[in-house]
Amino acid sequence: MTTPSTQILRPASYVYGQWHANKDGQTLLDAVYGRPVAVISSEGVDFAQALAYGREAGAGLRKLTFHTRARMLKALGNYLMERKEDYYALNLLTGATRRDGWVDIEGGIGTLFSYSSMARRELPDERFLPDGKVEVLGKGGTFMARHLLVPREGVAVQINAYNFPVWGMLEKLAPAFIAGMPSLVKPAPQTAYLTERVVRDIIASGILPEGSLQLVTGDPGDLLDHLLEQDMVAFTGSAATANKLKVHPNIVARSIPFNAEADSLNAAVLGVTVRPKDPEFALFVKEVAREMTGKAGQKCTAIRRPLVPCHLVDPVVEALRAELAKVTVGDPARDDVRMGALVSVEQRERVRETLEKLGQDAEVVIGGGAGELLGGDREKGAFLDPTVLLCRNPLEAKGPHELEAFGPVATLMPYDTLDDAITLAKMGRGSLAASVVTFNRHEATELVLGIASTHGRVLVLNRADAKESTGHGSPLPQLLHGGPGRAGGGAEMAGLAGVKHHMNKVAVQADPTTLAAITKEHIPGAEVREDVVHPFRKTFDQIQPGDSLLTHRRTVTEADIVNFAALTGDHFYAHVDDIGAKEGIFGKRVAHGYFLISAAAGQFVSAAPGPVLANYGLENLRFVEPVGIGDTIRTRLTCKRKIRKDLRPGEERPTGVVEWHAEITNQHEQLVATYDILTLVERARDEFDEPAEAVEGAQA
Amino acid sequence: MTTPSTQILRPASYVYGQWHANKDGQTLLDAVYGRPVAVISSEGVDFAQALAYGREAGAGLRKLTFHTRARMLKALGNYLMERKEDYYALNLLTGATRRDGWVDIEGGIGTLFSYSSMARRELPDERFLPDGKVEVLGKGGTFMARHLLVPREGVAVQINAYNFPVWGMLEKLAPAFIAGMPSLVKPAPQTAYLTERVVRDIIASGILPEGSLQLVTGDPGDLLDHLLEQDMVAFTGSAATANKLKVHPNIVARSIPFNAEADSLNAAVLGVTVRPKDPEFALFVKEVAREMTGKAGQKCTAIRRPLVPCHLVDPVVEALRAELAKVTVGDPARDDVRMGALVSVEQRERVRETLEKLGQDAEVVIGGGAGELLGGDREKGAFLDPTVLLCRNPLEAKGPHELEAFGPVATLMPYDTLDDAITLAKMGRGSLAASVVTFNRHEATELVLGIASTHGRVLVLNRADAKESTGHGSPLPQLLHGGPGRAGGGAEMAGLAGVKHHMNKVAVQADPTTLAAITKEHIPGAEVREDVVHPFRKTFDQIQPGDSLLTHRRTVTEADIVNFAALTGDHFYAHVDDIGAKEGIFGKRVAHGYFLISAAAGQFVSAAPGPVLANYGLENLRFVEPVGIGDTIRTRLTCKRKIRKDLRPGEERPTGVVEWHAEITNQHEQLVATYDILTLVERARDEFDEPAEAVEGAQA
Repeated sequence: MTTPSTQILRPASYVYGQWHANKDGQTLLDAVYGRPVAVISSEGVDFAQALAYGREAGAGLRKLTFHTRARMLKALGNYLMERKEDYYALNLLTGATRRDGWVDIEGGIGTLFSYSSMARRELPDERFLPDGKVEVLGKGGTFMARHLLVPREGVAVQINAYNFPVWGMLEKLAPAFIAGMPSLVKPAPQTAYLTERVVRDIIASGILPEGSLQLVTGDPGDLLDHLLEQDMVAFTGSAATANKLKVHPNIVARSIPFNAEADSLNAAVLGVTVRPKDPEFALFVKEVAREMTGKAGQKCTAIRRPLVPCHLVDPVVEALRAELAKVTVGDPARDDVRMGALVSVEQRERVRETLEKLGQDAEVVIGGGAGELLGGDREKGAFLDPTVLLCRNPLEAKGPHELEAFGPVATLMPYDTLDDAITLAKMGRGSLAASVVTFNRHEATELVLGIASTHGRVLVLNRADAKESTGHGSPLPQLLHGGPGRAGGGAEMAGLAGVKHHMNKVAVQADPTTLAAITKEHIPGAEVREDVVHPFRKTFDQIQPGDSLLTHRRTVTEADIVNFAALTGDHFYAHVDDIGAKEGIFGKRVAHGYFLISAAAGQFVSAAPGPVLANYGLENLRFVEPVGIGDTIRTRLTCKRKIRKDLRPGEERPTGVVEWHAEITNQHEQLVATYDILTLVERARDEFDEPAEAVEGAQA
Repeated sequence: MTTPSTQILRPASYVYGQWHANKDGQTLLDAVYGRPVAVISSEGVDFAQALAYGREAGAGLRKLTFHTRARMLKALGNYLMERKEDYYALNLLTGATRRDGWVDIEGGIGTLFSYSSMARRELPDERFLPDGKVEVLGKGGTFMARHLLVPREGVAVQINAYNFPVWGMLEKLAPAFIAGMPSLVKPAPQTAYLTERVVRDIIASGILPEGSLQLVTGDPGDLLDHLLEQDMVAFTGSAATANKLKVHPNIVARSIPFNAEADSLNAAVLGVTVRPKDPEFALFVKEVAREMTGKAGQKCTAIRRPLVPCHLVDPVVEALRAELAKVTVGDPARDDVRMGALVSVEQRERVRETLEKLGQDAEVVIGGGAGELLGGDREKGAFLDPTVLLCRNPLEAKGPHELEAFGPVATLMPYDTLDDAITLAKMGRGSLAASVVTFNRHEATELVLGIASTHGRVLVLNRADAKESTGHGSPLPQLLHGGPGRAGGGAEMAGLAGVKHHMNKVAVQADPTTLAAITKEHIPGAEVREDVVHPFRKTFDQIQPGDSLLTHRRTVTEADIVNFAALTGDHFYAHVDDIGAKEGIFGKRVAHGYFLISAAAGQFVSAAPGPVLANYGLENLRFVEPVGIGDTIRTRLTCKRKIRKDLRPGEERPTGVVEWHAEITNQHEQLVATYDILTLVERARDEFDEPAEAVEGAQA
């Protein structure tokens, strides 16, 4: 099998609800044989209209809750996964192997699933997000504040690089969509036909509300001139382009957030304690080789600067030479090919020029020529063999820390001490990722903390985590993707931080009852509602934040303490030793803290079977005042907030989580203990309880 | 008493450990009589050297822990508070009354205290901060990640506005210092002599490590040309200047974070449900008057656009007229003066010009002339009487939403519906603060959520919180200060977020044991250390993260469940009703969750008096698997982390908080429950246990 010759594609733009194609435009060549593959042009697209259309769609998107949007992302993920082979076919034309494509295509779709489950697990089923704790601003308790996050009311303009045409789009789309912001995607021209192919499926699926996703294939024209204050821009690409775009007068004048991810000169440090026979030595060599050659080195997170203890330079070069010798180069459609082509011959020429400049400070020690090619066209295809340089005086050299050869190229650098290794890593002036390869924990700690200020992610690789490690170059939805300085100073993903990045943070100050009404969460001090119906007899649908129960009283006796100690085996002196307790911080025997919360449950629990299925957790417990023999306690239980749970496959009973705030007070109305209880509560079956497949089918 | 005539001040710069003064320079006039008050110049300051010196000092600062830095801030706050009268004297020269000065001087010093206690309460006594939860990245539990925050290794350049010469400096300095970053402060020239006065005391105190604070009085020269990637800039001032500075080529090329706080056209909305006789009507009028005239209206958070239901325009104008009539204008040193002067006659002319432009869309309904002046010089002093305009068609007008008269000026706007009010508030294109004045919670919710996307802070003012409200215009250390769009898109304070803003976030991936070693916190799955000494017999100083105890086993019997129900009164069917329990989610009777954690305490507690004084709280409890009759449980207790606590006045026993991770497992080694326990543990007295006064004295 070889990379298929296709008819020439005409990837279109999708704007204001229409596909917009042009007959003429820029002709793109495939990376392997240099045959024309696509013609793209955005001629005639009205960018002002596209932005206005997106903003209008945003209003609709904001009416949905986080959970509804999350369910859509999951359905979309399933829909795209079924069509992945179409994307793998186009992936080959970009010069990438199937393995490269897996990171882009399935990695991209995986981001949809990750954000979908993160949102349903960690966000309320609401349109906004209370953030952080309630701040009590007045001693009398009548003035409080809380931060809220609400979606920005604009369009998220996403300008992507050519190397990850699928992942690059979806890792930006997912958090924006969860937040409630529509996206306008501008892929790099070289691989825009693959992005467009995926967008075609997304639009055809009808799963995302119309207007949530627009696509500009081709030149972005005067797009940036029409941005407004609530829009935002996320950019991935070269530092030079980022720096040009972020000073656009309109972006500056309107304080439009501009997130930049630029390539960086990422280091990998082999620890000084590692010996050639240690597993970490082999892990280092394999990781460098994999990062250099994956996607033909066209990864912003690739290892560019392997740092090696002086005495290990020769063994590393030899091992790396052996490892890279296994990397067969050629047509990525062939099963025996491990590395494909760069994206274009222009890109290859750029890398060659950079290699030449790097030659001033470093010498080629591996590769540099043209080895055997397994398929593909050596001249018209964009092939470049893996090349390793050695820079013998890296502390003095400039080029290897400044010039990025965006291809299968790395520059080895020897170092003497850990301090030198740290200095060298930092000479990249800010990077997306670094690796520290060692099993010595002291060394790992020194290196990680030493380079932490200039990196967005650091991987410690050793025999303990190698099997499960996702590798130096893999950004993960849970973790920060971005880095300071040279890397652009941006921040993507990092779990919910990536969602929050698309929202505006606002501090709301009010009296507790008003603040509870606005945030839809009960706040201690806010008015509560008491009812003849016990709150545990209400279903998830019936119970509301603020519903409250004040229990009967109970006097805590010496017998209670003695019995509790006997039953639990907890004979701590503060409870059972009159002499020790008198000398202790309470000055007397006091009830066990766990007795108090257990007795409180005895006060508020409704014993017969009902909608409350289980108490499955507890948070924020603080014992505020000790309870002595003869003190009388009572408990107030108030519904704090609710989080609907999706019915999982196999589950029959629909449920939700109800969080209750509990306060135990004594006879002097002093607070004795305060905590939050998590219960699982039955709810009525609703429209979203169909399995995801059915949801998808219904909307498709 | 009138504003004192002083000898001419020569406020200096403080750079690279030296005071740098010039004889000649820009002459500043006092705001009240127009007399020369100071000459400033930064001529001869070497900005590259100052930055290099600051970075060097940063290395020392980063060796201190958060708590050490926090104690220094508190000592500094006490030191400055004793000298506040010196600052009040200079405050008068700026045109501000004592009441205005209170916000600036005592408000500024208060920020030091706030950040000091926040840091000691919420941050570990460490040099870096683990952020967020541990992410499990591999199913086998060998690959995990956590985000860390470490100080940026540069200088925080802080460019301040003239209106709050003390607060403006301290609210930026405090979070930067806690984070571990040195500051270089560039105050606005007009009031730099007051900033310099405070800096003199700070330097003389010797409380902050040398180099933590540098001051540039006068022109900033080529300062920005010398910034590096790890430096950062925080700017407060006009949007025009912000936009000029943030495109500085060096700032752009190095991705240097640039935080901008610009003035904004803040709205205050009187609810449509409010009637003239309601307390909220009077509150609205008072708040508008106070915000217009406080600091002579020179506040970036001042109310510029009061929005009033159409039918209430006339009553509001009349009430506001009466309220403003009470505002006596003149020499702020006089007790009978309520409002002083603007900072300079140039500033007054600028306001007058803006008033003229506003005249195109609005008419003056209150003030606008020159009333009686109580002291001060009408011509040479920068006086301007409070002026209220009325814009009858605010939805069509542009000027009142774009032009800021930075003085005692506001433009009233009538509105019809809440939707119109929201639209009008948003026409400011992003603001720092807004007020919503109503006691109707539905209306408050609509308005707050309606304008949340375009504001940094929203105050709901009503009869319930008015007494404790800190007011529309007061930024608080706990809350966000900043706003999107027109307001600059910046974010200051917001509690610890302001500290984190000065740190670099890095995701660290490793095996759990290495990750625990790096973060200095035990992580479930990491290796633990078992010892012959029971962990509860170790003091705070002896115990270390990873110290662990695996308890004996206990079989849970029917008698346990029955006795626990009887003792606590918790007869929930899942525990005691065999019929109900069989139909319930567990399918059988199970032990009470609280019994499990109580029995676990019985397993791990060391009963005799010892260093563990009390269990005062619990977090993150999750019941994972039910425990039935006959199941056998055991518990592992591992020290997770420690937080040293300062000895409070009156306290005799020095203590710290030790957080323990507890895991209860059953006979199948399944996890049954997991949680974290907070204990108070004795520690040895150390050098920091002296009262704050003594610390200060020792270092001064």
